[in-house]
Formats: sequence, structure tokens, C-alpha cells
Amino acid sequence: MLKMKVQDMTIEYTTTPKEKPDLSTLVFGKTFTDHMFVMDYEEGKGWHDARIVPYGDMTISPAAMVFHYGQTVFEGLKAYKNEAGEITLFRPDENMKRLNASNDRLCMPHVDGEFVIDAMKKLIAIEKDWVPAKAGMALYVRPVMFATEAYLGVAPSKKYRFLILLSPVGAYYKEGINPVKIAVEGEYVRAVKGGTGAAKTAGNYASSLKAQEVAEANGYSQVLWLDGREHKYIEEVGAMNVFFKINGEIVTPALNGSILPGITRKSVVQLLTHWGENVVERQLSIDELIEAANNGQLEEAFGTGTAAVISPIGELFYNGQKIVVNEGEIGTLAQKVYDTITGIQFGTVEDPFDWRVQVATT
Amino acid sequence: MLKMKVQDMTIEYTTTPKEKPDLSTLVFGKTFTDHMFVMDYEEGKGWHDARIVPYGDMTISPAAMVFHYGQTVFEGLKAYKNEAGEITLFRPDENMKRLNASNDRLCMPHVDGEFVIDAMKKLIAIEKDWVPAKAGMALYVRPVMFATEAYLGVAPSKKYRFLILLSPVGAYYKEGINPVKIAVEGEYVRAVKGGTGAAKTAGNYASSLKAQEVAEANGYSQVLWLDGREHKYIEEVGAMNVFFKINGEIVTPALNGSILPGITRKSVVQLLTHWGENVVERQLSIDELIEAANNGQLEEAFGTGTAAVISPIGELFYNGQKIVVNEGEIGTLAQKVYDTITGIQFGTVEDPFDWRVQVATT
Repeated sequence: MLKMKVQDMTIEYTTTPKEKPDLSTLVFGKTFTDHMFVMDYEEGKGWHDARIVPYGDMTISPAAMVFHYGQTVFEGLKAYKNEAGEITLFRPDENMKRLNASNDRLCMPHVDGEFVIDAMKKLIAIEKDWVPAKAGMALYVRPVMFATEAYLGVAPSKKYRFLILLSPVGAYYKEGINPVKIAVEGEYVRAVKGGTGAAKTAGNYASSLKAQEVAEANGYSQVLWLDGREHKYIEEVGAMNVFFKINGEIVTPALNGSILPGITRKSVVQLLTHWGENVVERQLSIDELIEAANNGQLEEAFGTGTAAVISPIGELFYNGQKIVVNEGEIGTLAQKVYDTITGIQFGTVEDPFDWRVQVATT
Repeated sequence: MLKMKVQDMTIEYTTTPKEKPDLSTLVFGKTFTDHMFVMDYEEGKGWHDARIVPYGDMTISPAAMVFHYGQTVFEGLKAYKNEAGEITLFRPDENMKRLNASNDRLCMPHVDGEFVIDAMKKLIAIEKDWVPAKAGMALYVRPVMFATEAYLGVAPSKKYRFLILLSPVGAYYKEGINPVKIAVEGEYVRAVKGGTGAAKTAGNYASSLKAQEVAEANGYSQVLWLDGREHKYIEEVGAMNVFFKINGEIVTPALNGSILPGITRKSVVQLLTHWGENVVERQLSIDELIEAANNGQLEEAFGTGTAAVISPIGELFYNGQKIVVNEGEIGTLAQKVYDTITGIQFGTVEDPFDWRVQVATT
């Protein structure tokens, strides 16, 4: 297969550009920009027809395997615009590594991560006026890839489509960071060792909706997932990774094959290590957590993810017991991590790790 | 919501009917008929726009939630044509019950099963010349439903599409029933209690491909899935349910929340009970099975599913040990079950259970 080059990509500009939305009322994930990136894959031919086209509906066979057997992977990252108008991405190489790891698990072909990042940069450059130039806001970038072969046999598809969609997002925390209430999930399971939990694939999210629905009906924002084997060890919170500060030690569940290897998670571990904090990736049981809370040793709890960066947990509900964390307030560590990572993303804080990747817009 | 009626459905006939395929060379799931059934759902409006249209590509948003978060359920059943030209379906009411159970697990709206069966019958009547009139052949019917709202938030979609696709299928066993070789899966897991294993949803199939790929590379046709919690109890084989005859007792794993409640499985249990056989739905460990095999008590092993009806297992591979079942031949019980169920389906054997449902074609 020939190596794809961004110079060879065709670009079709829209003739009907949309009006930019009011950023103050923007809802996450409902507004899309004027263009999208598309390429197609066919066994024997590889990836081909890389193109930027006007954002809009596409045609697909109703027998496309994605609808029936769910081969699909995706990624999520953000583009930020600083006060000087410079646009940067946050660690896009990590997204490409994870995308291809997800592809391995789902029996889907790899993409050329370098080319995809180049195409992503080109697309963002075209849409540069869609990137909000305000701290807390960003252009959400959604690479997604799915099976398109029209075939009802249970087997890996021989055809795929890869897209990059862009969606401007307003401030995640419109009124400052408010810690959320979390219910520990006792019945449903997000993933299990040997399953697809470590891959960023649609089925994991479809599977999670029911528990979320039950939690919301009971007044909780998210669920804390326990492992699928013993219902004993903490895995994730909602669609985020999770950290706890227990008696001075900062613990996040070790990657075990069923936990998603979050890029924000990885960045938080690196940052805490850089600061000389005592951060440990290990197995953490719900019993240990509850005991620590009851002994007054649970100092902080927070989720990490691309959307919120940091989402502090103010209350945990488990087995009829309500556990208030840090008096329901955001902890000093969570606040410091949030300020630093968002600062690096917006270019207002030094970036000792070279996490920022510039998007050329001229 | 108004009850939908099949009389109110719009029908658009194709102006370019396709040539019927050569049944002797037909590959499962690659040929589709001239028409398909479609209806759409929107929160607040319910199911609407029920229609039969020419089979072909459809337009959909690239942000449709099915591509990202995998809310999708499907069913599979067959229409058979007997020598008198009469067309029947096999237990379509069971498919509708399971479809709505899957919808519950995936936070998707119910369909009106009675209406869908009526629409299915109407579609099949239009395509009656596509139903092969030969024992062993059939028209495969694929109802499928997926999330269509253009939204990147992780939440149940507010819009869905439901389709029925039809695909003529040739003989599953072109050269008589040949027992297959099965590898017991030691690493990957199909489903776990608390997950989506009991629902007929895309993610389960996507998740299963990797183990299948490894098994095939090692010369096995399918994998025998063990439970996700302890890797100890038998769950399914490939995409089928599984039965073992051990020392006169016919055992199939009891439905436990992670096993798909197969309609062929249910029919086999009912048939065996009707015959006065000693059939038991219970937990069955791989250790018990291997011990029975080593003691010469494993008499038969077979999978059950819509595609093959019965798929005898001639060899099992587990922990380095090859176990040959019934000298690699189909057992007398498996053969009798196969002949009876396919006979009922084709109308050549009496149907004491009223499983056949007539499709009016005039």
C-alpha cells in the first residue's frame, strides 16, 4: 500500500457555510462544523479516497456490518485556541496509538496515525474560525471508524469508513466546578477481562446506558463501575477514569484489560509524578475505599476524561451508605491538576512534556 | 401513540427488479431482495412512516449515535416455502419478544411486535418469488434497529430506525451435515453477568470476532465460550447455543443473564421434553464436560441456531487435549432433532406446537 499524503487529499469546500453558534448556549455534541474528513478502506486496496467534504449525511447500505455486528472504534480529543489565535491539539499521537489498539481488538485495520493527524490538522485549519478562542471552550474532534461491507455473516468486515467530525463545545463547567454524586453500581457491568473494555468501541457505551439510567432515576449523576468478575474492584466512573487520594496516596485503578487507558488519566499520572506526588496505579477494592472513607482517610475523589478534564466526586452511594468526600467540595489536588492541564491546553501554563501540538493555520 | 396498521403502510415498488440468484452458489447474507421495510422513531412521536421501499442505500448522519455508542439490536429468522408453494415463518412472535427484551437492555423503545410481524408478512408476500422452494433453503429475514440521532453525548438516542432486510439463503449443509471442530476459549470472553450477553446486540458480535480469528488460525471452526466471571462454566458455541448428551442426560447451559435465549434452543428443549427425553437446563462446567468425555460418557455435542438449526460438534480442544465426540460423526439425537425441526419448518412433518405461521401471498 502506498503511504497516504495530506497533499494528495481532495478538498471540496461547502457552498453554504453555516452561521457560527452562540457559544454561551452551546450543548455538547449537537453542532457540527462545515466540513468533515472521510476516507475508505477495502481489503486488498487499503485506505483510499482521503478527502475533506462538506459536513452532511452520507449514504450507506442498510446491510453495512456496523449496524448488525458493531465493528466500530472512535476517539475524542480537543483543539484549543489561545489568546494569540494559535490552535493546538492535546497529545493526538496518544489518540492514534489507542485507536489502533482498539482496531486490533475489534479485528479492524490500522490507520496511519501520522497521516490522520496531518489530515486532522488540515481539517481544523479549514475550520479555524469554528475554534472558540476562550478558556474552557474548544473544538471537539471525533475520529470514528466503522464496518461498511454489506454482509450479514459474522466475520470481520472487508470494508471500513473513517471520518473526522468537528463540534465546537462551550464551557463544561458553566458555573464553576461542582462535584457530582456517584452511585456504586451493584448489578450492571461495563466490561470484563477478556472483553472489549480496554478498547474505545461503541458496544461498551451501549452497554453502560442502562446503569446510567437507573443511577439518574435515583438522583445520581454517574455510576462507579466495579469489575465484572468479582464485583469487588473499582474500574471507572461513568465514561471516565477515576482517582482517589487516600491518606496521602493518590490511587487510580491499574490498567487490567477491562479499563479504558484514558489519555487524561495518563497525563494526570505523569503530572503527579512530575510534582513528586505519591501516585500509584494498583488494584483498589470498593471495601478498601469505603473503609478509608469511614476512617476519615479518603481525602479526594475525581474522574478524568477529555470532556471535563477533571470531574470531582462529592458523594458516593454504596450499599445504602452515603459517603461525602471532602465535604462535597473540590479538593486542592483536583483543582491544581485541573488548572494545570487546562492551562497547558490553553497555552497559559508551561508545557514541560511537549503535550501541545501546533496546528498551522496559514 | 396510535396503533400502526399494515393497511396504512406506504409501498413503493422497485422499477428495476433484480435477477434471482443461482441458489446452488448462493453465499449467506450477501444477496438481498428487491424491497425492504423501514420505519422511524422519534421521542414524543413514536414509530412513524412505516413503508416498504426498494432495497438500497440509505442516507444517515455521520454523527448518528449508532456509529459512536452502538445502540442497536437485531433478530434473525427464516421464511420457508413448501412444495405447495405455501410460505411460513418459524415462531416470529418469539423474535419479537426477544427484540423488545433486547430493547429494554439497550435503553431503546419497544416495537409493536404484532404490527412488525404483519409488515414482515406483507414484505415477504411482495418478495414471494425470492423464497427458495427447496428443503434446506429459505429466505433469511433480518429485522434490525439502531440509533439515528445526530448527537455525540453518551445517552440513549431520541431517534431510531427499524428495518427488515430479506436475503435468500442456499443450503447450509451443501454436502450433508459435517461435525465441526471447536476450541474452548481460554482468554477472550463473549459476555458476563451484568453485561449485554442476553441481548441480541451488535457489540456482542464485535467482541466475539477476535477469539474466532484465533480459533480459525489454529484450525478450529468456532470457539466454545466460558463464563466471564470464573472461566469455568460453558455458555455458548460461536454464535449458537450448545447442548451435550452426557450419560443419557441432555444438558444445555441454563439462561443466566449472559447467554442469548436462542429460539432454536427453546424449540429443541420443548421438542426433547415432548419426546420424553431427559433434558436439563443447568450450569455445566468445562471440567465436568472433560471428565465425562474422558469417562466415555459424552455421547453427543451440538450447537443450535437459526442459520444451521443444528451444528454437531465432532471435536473439542481444551488445555492441549483433543476430545473426539461420537467418533466425529453426527449423533442419532442431533440428527433426529435436525430432521424434525427442519421438517416442521418445511411443512413435511406435523407441527404439534403451532410453530409455523402462514404468510398469505394472495
